[in-house]
Amino acid sequence: MSTSLSRQASLTLTQQLAERLAERIRMHLLPAGARLPSVRECARQHNVSSYTVVAAYDLLQAQGLVEARPQRGFFVRDFVQNPLQVSESSSHVAIKKRVGDSPLGLAPGTRINASMLIRGMFLESVAGKPQPGAGVLPAEWLDASFLAAAMRKVTSGPALRETLVRYGEPMGDSGLREALARRMQRIGIAASPSQIITTMGATQALDIVSRALLQPGDPVMVEEPGWAVEYARLAAMGMRVLPVPRGPEGPDMAVMQRYCETMAPKLYVSVSVLHNPTGYSLSAASAHEILQMAQRHGFYVAEDDSYCHIAPDHAPRVTVLDRLQRSIYISGFAKVLVPNWRLGYIAAPPELVERLLDVKLLSTLSTPTPMEQALALCMEQGQLRRHAERLRQHLDKARTRSVALAQAAGCHFVSEPAGMFGWVDTGVDTEVLTQRLLDEGYMIAPGAMFHASRGSSTCMRINFATTQDAAFWRVFERVVARMREQG
Amino acid sequence: MSTSLSRQASLTLTQQLAERLAERIRMHLLPAGARLPSVRECARQHNVSSYTVVAAYDLLQAQGLVEARPQRGFFVRDFVQNPLQVSESSSHVAIKKRVGDSPLGLAPGTRINASMLIRGMFLESVAGKPQPGAGVLPAEWLDASFLAAAMRKVTSGPALRETLVRYGEPMGDSGLREALARRMQRIGIAASPSQIITTMGATQALDIVSRALLQPGDPVMVEEPGWAVEYARLAAMGMRVLPVPRGPEGPDMAVMQRYCETMAPKLYVSVSVLHNPTGYSLSAASAHEILQMAQRHGFYVAEDDSYCHIAPDHAPRVTVLDRLQRSIYISGFAKVLVPNWRLGYIAAPPELVERLLDVKLLSTLSTPTPMEQALALCMEQGQLRRHAERLRQHLDKARTRSVALAQAAGCHFVSEPAGMFGWVDTGVDTEVLTQRLLDEGYMIAPGAMFHASRGSSTCMRINFATTQDAAFWRVFERVVARMREQG
Repeated sequence: MSTSLSRQASLTLTQQLAERLAERIRMHLLPAGARLPSVRECARQHNVSSYTVVAAYDLLQAQGLVEARPQRGFFVRDFVQNPLQVSESSSHVAIKKRVGDSPLGLAPGTRINASMLIRGMFLESVAGKPQPGAGVLPAEWLDASFLAAAMRKVTSGPALRETLVRYGEPMGDSGLREALARRMQRIGIAASPSQIITTMGATQALDIVSRALLQPGDPVMVEEPGWAVEYARLAAMGMRVLPVPRGPEGPDMAVMQRYCETMAPKLYVSVSVLHNPTGYSLSAASAHEILQMAQRHGFYVAEDDSYCHIAPDHAPRVTVLDRLQRSIYISGFAKVLVPNWRLGYIAAPPELVERLLDVKLLSTLSTPTPMEQALALCMEQGQLRRHAERLRQHLDKARTRSVALAQAAGCHFVSEPAGMFGWVDTGVDTEVLTQRLLDEGYMIAPGAMFHASRGSSTCMRINFATTQDAAFWRVFERVVARMREQG
Repeated sequence: MSTSLSRQASLTLTQQLAERLAERIRMHLLPAGARLPSVRECARQHNVSSYTVVAAYDLLQAQGLVEARPQRGFFVRDFVQNPLQVSESSSHVAIKKRVGDSPLGLAPGTRINASMLIRGMFLESVAGKPQPGAGVLPAEWLDASFLAAAMRKVTSGPALRETLVRYGEPMGDSGLREALARRMQRIGIAASPSQIITTMGATQALDIVSRALLQPGDPVMVEEPGWAVEYARLAAMGMRVLPVPRGPEGPDMAVMQRYCETMAPKLYVSVSVLHNPTGYSLSAASAHEILQMAQRHGFYVAEDDSYCHIAPDHAPRVTVLDRLQRSIYISGFAKVLVPNWRLGYIAAPPELVERLLDVKLLSTLSTPTPMEQALALCMEQGQLRRHAERLRQHLDKARTRSVALAQAAGCHFVSEPAGMFGWVDTGVDTEVLTQRLLDEGYMIAPGAMFHASRGSSTCMRINFATTQDAAFWRVFERVVARMREQG
């Protein structure tokens, strides 16, 4: 994705423009149903003639990527075709159905938002620059060569033979589960290894919890703003997604109370500490209140503690107060170590363990032992703890710098900056801003990605580690100023 | 699990007996709802006094593992407790519900069967002997040190740095997908790497296909006998499971036709080649007929080719005839390489790829790159092909030996012995036989595990690699003879 189209390239300007737009469509950065800019606007943005734009749009239409609607312009097609007419059974339709059912359901397009976000997470750095919208810390920070060394150790010699040839323990490697129990002890949760199930990252942990505890149509409370992948998964499973506004201290208890009285939700999914995208951390009083409500109304709390390694150990958590009675602890290592290795876990009330294990077995059978043993080794030897400590120091420095730059560029922090992400108000529609900044080679995370009910938002989430570059903020200021001029 | 209770042990006979039964209950080898043997029968089996048995049963009752029902005896409790009354939403109940809905649905207990089977797969060798019911080849056969060496290579030096710090490609490592496309080419399926998605084993592949193509309540055709985990997954998802009898040439087309006319199934899941448990392989004519029906009635075929590495390359397959138009190819490496590493994949019609990828992303985000790169390396260097060739030779020898022993022990092969598993008629109820052989330290795979509608069966599945020991067959003959005497 180059910043500007080139007149010297082997492709014509038309082909270059069409290819750039086609790539965004394939990456879901221009979602299905989105309208392409008007010919005039696009010509201006890319500094080409209207003729070039019309020809590029025609090319995209010929490729089946967009369709012309008379009097209205060009729209991105939903290119998931379905010749056998099983579309009724697809997850996309499940979302649309739910919307019809309830005004509280998700708006159409949620799936696309999530796809976009997920694909964004996988994007190789656009144009070689650090990406403000990135969901992970920079590669250099995560380069945990100690983990690779541990991996080589557990795949060498006789240690390997034992693990190589079996399915492994259904619950996960027992050495790792013991190390995880000790780690949980440090943050104040007494969990026995027999309550801990390892998973393919926190993503599978959340998936397993949803599948084990819910049936299609069940109401589930989620935080808003919050993690779009969670909304999308629940919606795809046909659940009734009930967004609860998240504030600095915790969820809006009045809204939760209303849901409890009218909808009898089965589950509340929450990132208590260093909440994504706001960075908020739960107060002890809120945790207590949530648990009282859970007890009164009979729902479980799934506490996603994905950011625990960059958070203080003593932060209040629902699972700490509750001692895993009606709460389930979920965490993983994607934020501090090798996102791709998918190391995560669930710690659950004893009576739920069997049921959760069944779902794990039916979905991936087991999880790979060598990676779990390598992680256990790093935890036991204190390498992980020291690595996390270094990350926190890097992050503190980066945060100070990024906050100053963002404020100088006219951004307002909605929440007190903390942790990895900042939640900033830009003053302009961040969906539009996303497309404009992509033209400049930057990918941001627009506010709409963090809302269950889509809609334009002037907020965006920034990654403190990848927004330390003044060059980005200069481009940002210029683009925002131009958007304001255009009204 | 020792073979006989010991009077010299530090535990009393009562404690030993209670512990042995408790272990089976925890492993689901004695499923919830099962009746314990009568006191007299149990005393006879274990060569202890009735007093010891009564005391052991009391102990189990005190532990909450069994309950006494007046006039009827002791029964295994369903120890998945549910204080918050969310049991309505549990997968177990989903199964029971479906049964109520349709006479074709699954009988209660299917989940337990699957749990039992899966846990059986994870069982460390019972009493140190090879297990006739094992689902995998013996450890010594699978000891693929070349894969471990490849793993060390991809986790060394700069090769690692690139993969260690990102989420990886959503579709899976591109090098592996190219190697898989070449392998598929060899068996006659032209799939582009862009149609291939890697998964955590064939298990996740089947899970993703079901989640992407089906909605709760959708009718799905499965083979019977067949793979109980597949039945259990579909039932847990609330699908309507329609069993189609599997014969030597393929499925019973008349039954399929009737389902198509009355229920409009959305999917047919099949192991075409070296079918589990029968070893049957599909004929080309059956493949053609299935595809014509799929076209006429608009369902997809998910072809699980998990046994491809021990099957001839030229075996007829639905996906070969169909060129992946309304068929989906699924395979994995658990049968030939490191079951625990969970290496699998899906090759799908182009129009389904996006939808399948979305489900993968929502369920595990990505799959670990280092393992995929190690596998790709072994495939490229021909190590996997040579290893599979060696396995086939081992298996051919083992099959000859095991078949002779089984027949000498009075077993009748229901199907022509082929591949890894034999499907044999023992002449006695294999559910009862399972418990009797467990007392002798052997675990078998009873026929009921391979049926959607549970019920006693005189068949069992044997693993040719682990039934070469004459000692097992002597015990088998003795136990069967005793069962016959007792009528």
